Amino acid sequence: MKELKDRILKEGQALSKEVLSVDSFLNHQVDPVLVQKMGKEFARYFKDKHVTKVITVESSGIAPAIFTALELNVPVIFARKHKSLTLTTDLYTSDVYSYTKETFNTISVSSHYLNEWDRVLIIDDFLANGQAVKGMLNICSQAKAQPVGAGIVIEKSWQKGRSMLEEQGVDVYSLARIQELDEGKIEFLD
Amino acid sequence: MKELKDRILKEGQALSKEVLSVDSFLNHQVDPVLVQKMGKEFARYFKDKHVTKVITVESSGIAPAIFTALELNVPVIFARKHKSLTLTTDLYTSDVYSYTKETFNTISVSSHYLNEWDRVLIIDDFLANGQAVKGMLNICSQAKAQPVGAGIVIEKSWQKGRSMLEEQGVDVYSLARIQELDEGKIEFLD
Repeated sequence: MKELKDRILKEGQALSKEVLSVDSFLNHQVDPVLVQKMGKEFARYFKDKHVTKVITVESSGIAPAIFTALELNVPVIFARKHKSLTLTTDLYTSDVYSYTKETFNTISVSSHYLNEWDRVLIIDDFLANGQAVKGMLNICSQAKAQPVGAGIVIEKSWQKGRSMLEEQGVDVYSLARIQELDEGKIEFLD
Repeated sequence: MKELKDRILKEGQALSKEVLSVDSFLNHQVDPVLVQKMGKEFARYFKDKHVTKVITVESSGIAPAIFTALELNVPVIFARKHKSLTLTTDLYTSDVYSYTKETFNTISVSSHYLNEWDRVLIIDDFLANGQAVKGMLNICSQAKAQPVGAGIVIEKSWQKGRSMLEEQGVDVYSLARIQELDEGKIEFLD
């Protein structure tokens, strides 16, 4: 998605070989016009997959996921990483390891909103080692729901997330694929 | 907003005198069509306020805030309640007390995205004691930005949030105002 790649080059900040900040338009401040276009693009790519539900993880996945869901005219679920007052029972949970933060997060989805008839499109802001997507696949599996693909805003293509997911038969579609990152340097794969 | 009130009556679960679960369409699973209508309604109400930025707190405020921002054609900032890898310096912060959870959260906004020329519309999912809105007003004040109002999806009108904010001159617009809540009971103010 050219407009996204242009924006990453213009405003993204490569803080290290691992960390790219896109806080000016995606992860803290959000450009709703750009993120709506992301949603339309994910919906276009996955339009024949008969998606019944979009799933993401709070918080940065919510914006691209909700525009995708709007376009596909289905509900979106955001898996909780943090405690909620109302979400306490009947949960599917999965432990997600973050290599960059070196911590585990337990993500939770209510069993009321995901079931065996669902065809689930996973959306997330970043794909690196694929741990968050793996956690969502695990939750789909607990619900006996069918995952139909993963839509990713920014892929760190030198990391193993895509290959790990493709080996499991997941159709991964990333809007921007980064080949190399270093302080002040951002290079795309294509 | 009649459609929202109908949905609250149909799917909302009053868990106690204080806690209303709307996890089926707002706080966990999200109905993007309904939430887009909320955004359009906030944008209609605040259209003459020359809003330059929408602000909310992660995670449940993001969906209504992003549709409001899309409609007003301005960026949205979601204040962070949790640590972010990229958001570590140049922060405005404020401590927000949650009466229901009995915990303090520190919310953070980067000083890069809010400044003295900004006219800020605050959006949140619930208004009870007004502590989250107060925290966002405090952050606006640190940035010397001008708050122009607060758009709330669901107001617990028996609690003191609205009166506290109105005393400070804040224009509070709530899409649904609940007068009384109890196990199995939801009564609106109007």
